[in-house]
Amino acid sequence: MNPIEKYNQRARKINSLLCVGLDSELEKIPDEFKLKEFPQFAFNEWLIEQTHEYAAAYKLNSAFYEAQGDKGVKELKMTMEYLHINYPDIFTILDAKRADIGNTNRGYIESIFNWLGFDAVTIHPYLGQEAVQPFLDRADKASIILCRTSNDGAGEFQDLKTDGKKLYEIVAERVSKEWSKNKNCMLVVGATYPEEMKKIREISGDMTFLVPGIGAQGGDLEAVIKNGLNSEGLGLIINSARGIIFADSPKEEARKLQEKINKYK
Amino acid sequence: MNPIEKYNQRARKINSLLCVGLDSELEKIPDEFKLKEFPQFAFNEWLIEQTHEYAAAYKLNSAFYEAQGDKGVKELKMTMEYLHINYPDIFTILDAKRADIGNTNRGYIESIFNWLGFDAVTIHPYLGQEAVQPFLDRADKASIILCRTSNDGAGEFQDLKTDGKKLYEIVAERVSKEWSKNKNCMLVVGATYPEEMKKIREISGDMTFLVPGIGAQGGDLEAVIKNGLNSEGLGLIINSARGIIFADSPKEEARKLQEKINKYK
Repeated sequence: MNPIEKYNQRARKINSLLCVGLDSELEKIPDEFKLKEFPQFAFNEWLIEQTHEYAAAYKLNSAFYEAQGDKGVKELKMTMEYLHINYPDIFTILDAKRADIGNTNRGYIESIFNWLGFDAVTIHPYLGQEAVQPFLDRADKASIILCRTSNDGAGEFQDLKTDGKKLYEIVAERVSKEWSKNKNCMLVVGATYPEEMKKIREISGDMTFLVPGIGAQGGDLEAVIKNGLNSEGLGLIINSARGIIFADSPKEEARKLQEKINKYK
Repeated sequence: MNPIEKYNQRARKINSLLCVGLDSELEKIPDEFKLKEFPQFAFNEWLIEQTHEYAAAYKLNSAFYEAQGDKGVKELKMTMEYLHINYPDIFTILDAKRADIGNTNRGYIESIFNWLGFDAVTIHPYLGQEAVQPFLDRADKASIILCRTSNDGAGEFQDLKTDGKKLYEIVAERVSKEWSKNKNCMLVVGATYPEEMKKIREISGDMTFLVPGIGAQGGDLEAVIKNGLNSEGLGLIINSARGIIFADSPKEEARKLQEKINKYK
């Protein structure tokens, strides 16, 4: 199935644009899970049971698992196996921010798409389309290209202007017009930059955005919905991690955020 | 110790600017190693014994290990332990091409610098200095920023001009003038772009370049030496992987390449 269609089906089915970020940094997870043999997996299993009915997608940031070496990578795999068995229709994203030259990317594809079985991966654009073509060629998987990132200093290079267009605008244009021949590209657009999001929506048509930066980073949810929804009332994967997973009740926080998103729609 | 000083000491000691790329893709390694319990590590151990006297540095591309899941990550760790015990003065680079926002990078730092113990990691510039500051803050480790990559399509974004300067030139300028306060930054400059290398040398002063693209990718070694050496007769880490590690005699290929580099110097 086309990966964006997979996301859209799930989003429609449960009426949710919410992505729960399983950023299960070992130091921060509750003590009761730390005692388990596989603490990051145990915490994730609990989080998934708490939040799955509100989650159109789960995003796992690879850094928090790699921090624990090969054991962390194993717990990442265990989490994916749990999701594949129990909730196969939930869209899964590895936030790994990869991109190497041509053939080398095959190693990442083997790991992220084939072995771990993610539906999507985040990708740096700096090397250009020719380098990341092996990702784009996987029509059954989504490549989510960094366009406007959510960090304070995102503009250092992303705002550089060439013939009146900023770099992030050129990335949005290239990805939507050239890279997405398989209709499997998405863009990362930070919630902390609503004006840039509006611009990227204009440039990219109905392309789907992965939106980090809600919650701890201070992104404005109302502006995201207003500027980011596409013509089908979809086109957004709104990620929240810390605000949900480290709350007293992840279930309640996920429910409230889904409700809030739908209110602004 | 300053990481660039570590590289320079090793390069001077053995009179070599050669970096051996341990791109030990499982499918390509000789059958005798494939039968071992840890084939990638066994092959690396053999390669290190073959090449260490010519190697100023070793570069391991993370993709080829991640392709084997948690087992591959374990063999990456075993390789690093072997190097730390036997050849601690050889400079080590994880070619991982990472970069996430601020705090998230701490996970990569924990994995790459603390757990695996690499001296250096390659980094994408797209998110800007503010995002990758946690890498730059590690004064004992080198951050090697992608500037001009070796792939055919590198120019798609890297050649975009802002006020007469190309993006890769602006990256070179920013990294050399602003990012490297701890004198611990280097730049990736592909051997396949000798003219761009000349330009980057002018912009960046004596900064050290990691140079991929010799050998299989067709980079011109003579032009690299001519355009890339810095004022100390150093400033280059010239990587060769496939041309050495899959040769009948990696030792002989490493020796010949070191000799060739020194001839052009």
